[in-house]
Amino acid sequence: MEHTAEDLRFISDAFSRFAPVGKLPGGGVTRLGYSETEDRMHEIFAAYAKELGGVYLTDDAGNSYVADSAEDGYVLIASHLDSVIGGGVYDGPGGVIAGLLVLRHAMRDGLRVPVRAGAFRCEESSNFGLCTIGSGLITQDSYSDNVGGLKGKDGRTLKEIFREKGWSLTPKRISGIREYLELHIEQGKVLEETGTETGVVTTIAGPDRWRFYLSGMADHSGATPMSMRYDALCAAAEIILEVEKAGLREAVYDSVSTVGVLDNTPNVMNVIPGEVALGVDLRGIRKDSIARMEADMLEAVRKICLRRGIRYRREQVNSVDPVELTKETGDGLFRAAEELKISCRRMPSGAGHDAMCFPEICPTGMVFIPCRGGISHNRKEFTSYKSIADGAAVMYRYLKDRYGTEK
Amino acid sequence: MEHTAEDLRFISDAFSRFAPVGKLPGGGVTRLGYSETEDRMHEIFAAYAKELGGVYLTDDAGNSYVADSAEDGYVLIASHLDSVIGGGVYDGPGGVIAGLLVLRHAMRDGLRVPVRAGAFRCEESSNFGLCTIGSGLITQDSYSDNVGGLKGKDGRTLKEIFREKGWSLTPKRISGIREYLELHIEQGKVLEETGTETGVVTTIAGPDRWRFYLSGMADHSGATPMSMRYDALCAAAEIILEVEKAGLREAVYDSVSTVGVLDNTPNVMNVIPGEVALGVDLRGIRKDSIARMEADMLEAVRKICLRRGIRYRREQVNSVDPVELTKETGDGLFRAAEELKISCRRMPSGAGHDAMCFPEICPTGMVFIPCRGGISHNRKEFTSYKSIADGAAVMYRYLKDRYGTEK
Repeated sequence: MEHTAEDLRFISDAFSRFAPVGKLPGGGVTRLGYSETEDRMHEIFAAYAKELGGVYLTDDAGNSYVADSAEDGYVLIASHLDSVIGGGVYDGPGGVIAGLLVLRHAMRDGLRVPVRAGAFRCEESSNFGLCTIGSGLITQDSYSDNVGGLKGKDGRTLKEIFREKGWSLTPKRISGIREYLELHIEQGKVLEETGTETGVVTTIAGPDRWRFYLSGMADHSGATPMSMRYDALCAAAEIILEVEKAGLREAVYDSVSTVGVLDNTPNVMNVIPGEVALGVDLRGIRKDSIARMEADMLEAVRKICLRRGIRYRREQVNSVDPVELTKETGDGLFRAAEELKISCRRMPSGAGHDAMCFPEICPTGMVFIPCRGGISHNRKEFTSYKSIADGAAVMYRYLKDRYGTEK
Repeated sequence: MEHTAEDLRFISDAFSRFAPVGKLPGGGVTRLGYSETEDRMHEIFAAYAKELGGVYLTDDAGNSYVADSAEDGYVLIASHLDSVIGGGVYDGPGGVIAGLLVLRHAMRDGLRVPVRAGAFRCEESSNFGLCTIGSGLITQDSYSDNVGGLKGKDGRTLKEIFREKGWSLTPKRISGIREYLELHIEQGKVLEETGTETGVVTTIAGPDRWRFYLSGMADHSGATPMSMRYDALCAAAEIILEVEKAGLREAVYDSVSTVGVLDNTPNVMNVIPGEVALGVDLRGIRKDSIARMEADMLEAVRKICLRRGIRYRREQVNSVDPVELTKETGDGLFRAAEELKISCRRMPSGAGHDAMCFPEICPTGMVFIPCRGGISHNRKEFTSYKSIADGAAVMYRYLKDRYGTEK
C-alpha cells in the first residue's frame, strides 16, 4: 500500500523527536523503565496533545495518554517508550507513534468512537527484572502485590521512585476502555523471510522466569587442587548448557530458553568463584512445553548442584501463562489488511507485550510489522516507516470498518 | 615448639593493629593493591621502625622496609599487605609480621648480618589482573614494560596512581640483598591433613593467565528461535567446562585450571548474551603440564566458537614459568626446623608469591605454615599465632645457624 507523504513525515518527525533521548555513542539507546530517561520520552509524547488538539491524560502508574477526549468507551492504541540496555529505537516507540497516527486520522475523520494513544512505562524487564510493569499495575492485582521492593539498576526501589513521583503501587484500575490495539515490530524473522507486510498476533508466549543463587566455596585458584573445589561457576556452566538443551528439545513447539543473567563473585583471576547468580527466561505459546522445560531445568539444577556439592536457592521471578488475544479483533484486523491489499498472516508472538495485560479486560488485538533480520534488543534493530504506516493503516481501517466515521 | 608469651603477644598485637583496615561488615577484608586501604597498612607497618629502634626505608615502587640499619648485604624477610576482595587477614600480613618478629630477635641478639623486614605492594592480581607488582617492579624488566596501562577496580591506571604518589614504573632495582626469606600460609590442605607444622617450598607454580572476549549476537530472548541464536554465554559455558576438564586431566601433576572471571553483556533477563569476557588462570609446577592445559584450552575455544558462530579475541595476560627456590636455603630451613623439633616437609606451592621474583637475584627460601581447611582468599581463612611463631622461629634459627650472633 502507498502512504501519503504526510503520514510518512509524521512518523519520521516523531522518531527524530525521540531520537536524542538515551542515545548511546556507538548507536542504539538505553531508556530504562521508570528512569529519568524514560520521563523525557513521556514529556515528548505529552506535547502531541497540544499539537493534535487533543487532551493529555495520565494515570497513577506513570503511564501517559493523548486522547481526542476524556470520554469513556474509548479504544486504546498503545505501546511503551522504555528500552533495554543498548536497545533499538523501534521496539515500543514504533507502536506509540502508530497510535498517535491513528488518533490523528480518527480526529480528522471524526471516528465514531473515542480514541486514546497510549504510552506505558517499563515494558522491558531490563531495569527491575519484571516486564510490563506500567500496564500490569493498572490491570492486574499480582503486580501491586510484588513490585514495591524491586530494585532498579541505580539501586533505588520502585517504592522509592513511586513515592518521589507521587504515583501509587496500587493505582486506580484502567476503566472505560472498549478495545485495546497495539502495533509492534515482530522481533523475529517470520514476516521478513515470508515476505509478509503485517502479522496479526494469535497468542503471546508467556515468560517463565527464574533466578538461581549458587553457593560453592571461594578458594585460592592456585593452591586448591582440582579435587577439592566447590566451583560455583563450573556448576553454572553445566546449568546454562542444560537450559539450552531443554529449549532445543522444545523448539519444535516454538519454545525458547535463555540464561540472560550471570553474576559471578568475587569475579577475580585468582579466586575460585564462590557465588554465582543466574537469571533464566523460558517462553512458549504452549503451557505443556513450558512446563517440560521448567521441569527439565529444575531437575538439572538439583542434580548438578548435588553432584558438585554446591548449595543453591531458587526463586521464580514471574510466570505468565501464554495469553490468547481476542479472535474477533484478530479477524477484523486481518480483514482490514485484506481490504487495503496489505499482505498479512496470523502468527504467535515469542516476545511479551503490554497487550498481554488486556484480554481479560477488553477485546485485544495486535499487529506485527517486520524488522530487519529479526534483530531486536540491539542497536541494529530496524523497521521502515512504511511498515509502521502499514500497521497503523490496518488498525485504522479496522476501527473505521467497525465504528464508522462522521465524514 | 613452645613460644614465649612475648612473641605470641607481639604477633597478636600486630594483627590487632592491622585489623580495622579494609574490614568488611560480614568478616574478612578488602585491601586492594595500590589503593588507599593498602597505604594505611603500610603506614601501620612503618610505625614499627621507631618502635623497634630501627630505620624505615622505601623504594620507588611503594614497597616498605623496616631494618636494623640501611647497610647493604642484608637478608630480606618479606611478604605483602594487600588482599583479594573479601579475603582473609593472614595471607600476606602473616609473613610481614613474621619478618618483624625475626628482625626483633636479630636486633636483640645482634645477628651478624643486616636484616630487613619488608612489605610489598599489590601481590594479589585482584586489582589489576596481574600479581606481585610491587616485588616484580624492583626485580624484573618485564613488569616495567607492561603495567602502566593496567586499570584498577576504581578505574584509575597504575600510571596515574604512580604519578600521584611520585613513584616510578621503572624504579631502581633492589640492591645489596644477600638472601630472601618469606613465610606464608599454605593456602592448601597438605600440612593440615598430614599434621605437619611447617613446609619448606621447593617450587612455586607459574600462573599462565588468559582473557577471552567472545562476541555473539545480542537478540530478543523471547522472539529468537533456538536455531537462530549466537549466544556468547552458552559458548562461555562450554569453554568453562573444557578448562575444568583440562585441569582434571593434569591434576596428577599438581596442575590446576580456573575460570575466575566472567563478565556477561548486556546481562539482562530478556536479551540473549551478546558479549562475554572470560579470565582463565592455569597453574602448575611442571612446564609441560601447563603447556598441555593451555593447548587443550585454546583448541577448545577455537572449536566451540567455530561451531557456534561466535567470534573471539584472546589475550595472554601473563605467563610465569614455575620457579624453583634455592636448594641450599631450603635445606638450611629444613635443618633449622629439625633442630627446633618443629615438624617440616618439603612441598611445592600452588599459589604464586613475592618469593618468585628473587631466585634470579639471590638465594631464596620460603616457609609455609598450615591454614585451617586449606581455605584462603576467603573471610574464613585462619592460621594460629603459634604457627606464625613456628615459621618465624625456623627462619630465625636458620639465620643464626648461618650467620651467628654477637650475644
